[in-house]
Amino acid sequence: MFKKILIANRGEIALRIIRTCKEMGVETVAVYSTVDKDSLHVRFADEAVCIGPPPSNLSYLNIPHIMSAAEITNADAIHPGYGFLAENAEFSRVCHEHGIKFIGASPKMINLMGDKATAKDTMKKAGVPTIPGSDGLLDSIEEGIKIAKKIKYPVILKATAGGGGKGMRIVKSDKEFKKAWDDAKMEAGAAFGNDGLYLEKFIEEPRHVEIQVVGDKKGKACHLSERDCSIQRRHQKLVEETPSPIMTKKLRDEMGAAAIKAAEAIKYEGAGTVEFLVDKNKDFYFMEMNTRIQVEHPITEQVTAFDLIKEQIKVAAGIEISGKNYFPLLYSMECRINAEDPVNGFRPSPGKITNLHLPGGQGVRVDSHVYAGYSIPPNYDSMIAKLIVSAQSREEVIVRMKRALEEFVIEGIKTTIPFHLKLMDDNEFNSGKFTTAFMDSFDLNDL
Amino acid sequence: MFKKILIANRGEIALRIIRTCKEMGVETVAVYSTVDKDSLHVRFADEAVCIGPPPSNLSYLNIPHIMSAAEITNADAIHPGYGFLAENAEFSRVCHEHGIKFIGASPKMINLMGDKATAKDTMKKAGVPTIPGSDGLLDSIEEGIKIAKKIKYPVILKATAGGGGKGMRIVKSDKEFKKAWDDAKMEAGAAFGNDGLYLEKFIEEPRHVEIQVVGDKKGKACHLSERDCSIQRRHQKLVEETPSPIMTKKLRDEMGAAAIKAAEAIKYEGAGTVEFLVDKNKDFYFMEMNTRIQVEHPITEQVTAFDLIKEQIKVAAGIEISGKNYFPLLYSMECRINAEDPVNGFRPSPGKITNLHLPGGQGVRVDSHVYAGYSIPPNYDSMIAKLIVSAQSREEVIVRMKRALEEFVIEGIKTTIPFHLKLMDDNEFNSGKFTTAFMDSFDLNDL
Repeated sequence: MFKKILIANRGEIALRIIRTCKEMGVETVAVYSTVDKDSLHVRFADEAVCIGPPPSNLSYLNIPHIMSAAEITNADAIHPGYGFLAENAEFSRVCHEHGIKFIGASPKMINLMGDKATAKDTMKKAGVPTIPGSDGLLDSIEEGIKIAKKIKYPVILKATAGGGGKGMRIVKSDKEFKKAWDDAKMEAGAAFGNDGLYLEKFIEEPRHVEIQVVGDKKGKACHLSERDCSIQRRHQKLVEETPSPIMTKKLRDEMGAAAIKAAEAIKYEGAGTVEFLVDKNKDFYFMEMNTRIQVEHPITEQVTAFDLIKEQIKVAAGIEISGKNYFPLLYSMECRINAEDPVNGFRPSPGKITNLHLPGGQGVRVDSHVYAGYSIPPNYDSMIAKLIVSAQSREEVIVRMKRALEEFVIEGIKTTIPFHLKLMDDNEFNSGKFTTAFMDSFDLNDL
Repeated sequence: MFKKILIANRGEIALRIIRTCKEMGVETVAVYSTVDKDSLHVRFADEAVCIGPPPSNLSYLNIPHIMSAAEITNADAIHPGYGFLAENAEFSRVCHEHGIKFIGASPKMINLMGDKATAKDTMKKAGVPTIPGSDGLLDSIEEGIKIAKKIKYPVILKATAGGGGKGMRIVKSDKEFKKAWDDAKMEAGAAFGNDGLYLEKFIEEPRHVEIQVVGDKKGKACHLSERDCSIQRRHQKLVEETPSPIMTKKLRDEMGAAAIKAAEAIKYEGAGTVEFLVDKNKDFYFMEMNTRIQVEHPITEQVTAFDLIKEQIKVAAGIEISGKNYFPLLYSMECRINAEDPVNGFRPSPGKITNLHLPGGQGVRVDSHVYAGYSIPPNYDSMIAKLIVSAQSREEVIVRMKRALEEFVIEGIKTTIPFHLKLMDDNEFNSGKFTTAFMDSFDLNDL
């Protein structure tokens, strides 16, 4: 086992990793930018090294400074957390060169999964379902119709140079194809000066469902079931839960097997997440694989009693996994508490926390690096706490979450708590029947 | 289900009950003495009524004041928590007379279990093992030896007027009996002016192991396994854990069956605890039954995912139980955080909490009514928080508890945290092999 782990991160995830290290009897080194000197991750680590000024590129993304900190403290491993350098192949490589174990993926693995096209190809070859469509640009309407027939309608035409919905058309039948093609081509040409189109199966009523996997050095992998992250705003997850409200035993077995196939195909080592879109027919399609711990990993820990950070560290230290899969024994949900003003487009609200009271009692877990008197710097991500609630059913989780949100006192800044409170009362959310488009129509004006 | 529950208590248990009521959609009324007006149980309840000045007998034990509060707020049930009026037959009776449901035992049940001799007789008749011994005073040495032979040595001779160890002798064989008898008789006569002796089986290497039971109005009962409360100081529990380190499947089945027999024999309704002493041979003996919720109930909740307060309320509302027993899925331990100075004989240390930071992260639950700036009044019990930690094994629970205790910041007063930190490092405690005498030899001077 490692003697000393340097945590190349800040905030709640740095503290989260320190907690597990303490429980494992492994020493810790915190790194921090000048603005984070009073942060809890600095206070609770055994050692702490300042690595630069507030801007990330000069501190938390500064590889030479972090490597120096690791060398002067004799750290034998580095945990990158999530974000910052967690999926940086260069950092993984530099660690390896310095003889320091990077607790994360190899440079090769990071590159493989970091490039979307390569990742998709790899998964397709491994037999993992991916979103079917044209191989690159379409030459003609006829080719488009032929592919659409094969992968089944509805399909979506997309501009290769596109973005923001421009040059995009959903097509439901052969009959509609020509008009959609002409419209999309014209729009794309006008918007991007490039009217190239490609085609994909259109995912109806999509949900974001991801599978947690762990692989070891022998190339063996297991899964720890799913997390449903369909409540998103501009691809930022706001709330995650497990089990997914749409999950069935059959679907979990199929998705779990696909995720293990994905991990084993690339001999994945460590904790990773395979993200899927699931459509209204419960067909699922690979989106991407994250070669790191996820923000929302605690809900999986709550329902499996597993410590995923411990598992990451053990696998990195060469300990093999049992290969057994883990299934949810409970329900769990996470609300991301951000220093943001949900009424004003979730605008960041940094500043000093003048009063803080954390919720407690049964089934309530708080992962947070903040305290009363702490000043949230404007330089980083605005998440200040994760409120994780568990119970025996989804209904109980929701009432408990509401109770815990009501107990949570954070004064001095704006937070997303009022948004979460309204969400817990929302009928559609309570029904469990929602898609990734849920937030598009959620009214934030009356919070 | 009840519409509104009045909580006739204060501190963490009042808040604990309010939390469950909120989750059940039941309104709550807090009562408080003048010194508790800024307490969290007052802040989080839907309504709050002042019931008198700080002394308990004028407020939390003042039945007429509490009944008035229930009537002016139209509460249809009263939850007494633990302590104060929780096992007061008169209060239970008055509630019944006023048509307000007492969420606890009936007056008859309270009286039955409140008198030790009656309780023991009742249990003996129901076939629950009790500590064997003489029926009252011994007439002669010969009678004593006869009984000792029957119940097997070692036995203990006790002065009927006794206390503080005076007039007590452990006897291991027939040969030793006469001398022990003469010594005990002389000592008792000199100390109490009464040399009457009785005899009991001497429990070797006793552990305090209690079984949580729940019974319903049909007289059906189930158990939720055990809690080991052997770490006590002057009969005050300091740390509790489940499963018990000495538990086996066979012993749990036997003790569980005995506890159910105890509850069913008296048609017990509600949540209760049957306390046993277990000796070195894993023979167990009934000590007493508590007809209320226990301080240490959360460890059972952590390992069974049950909400025991919810269960109490449901049973009081007439909902029947399934009758299924519940077994520990995890390990859990509770440290009682008291405002006391462990170096000075656990002397109470009331005062203002100037700074507070609660531990968090995986497997950590805090039940507490205090906050930064809160003043602990000198009038009541000194417990200010329960730190409850859960994990997959006892070893993991202990390292996690240590980590959480280290994170716990309470400034302005003395607390029992330094004691708990030392305990978590103690070899005997870590081995799990200790008895109720553990604290007698625990060194508190070097905290």
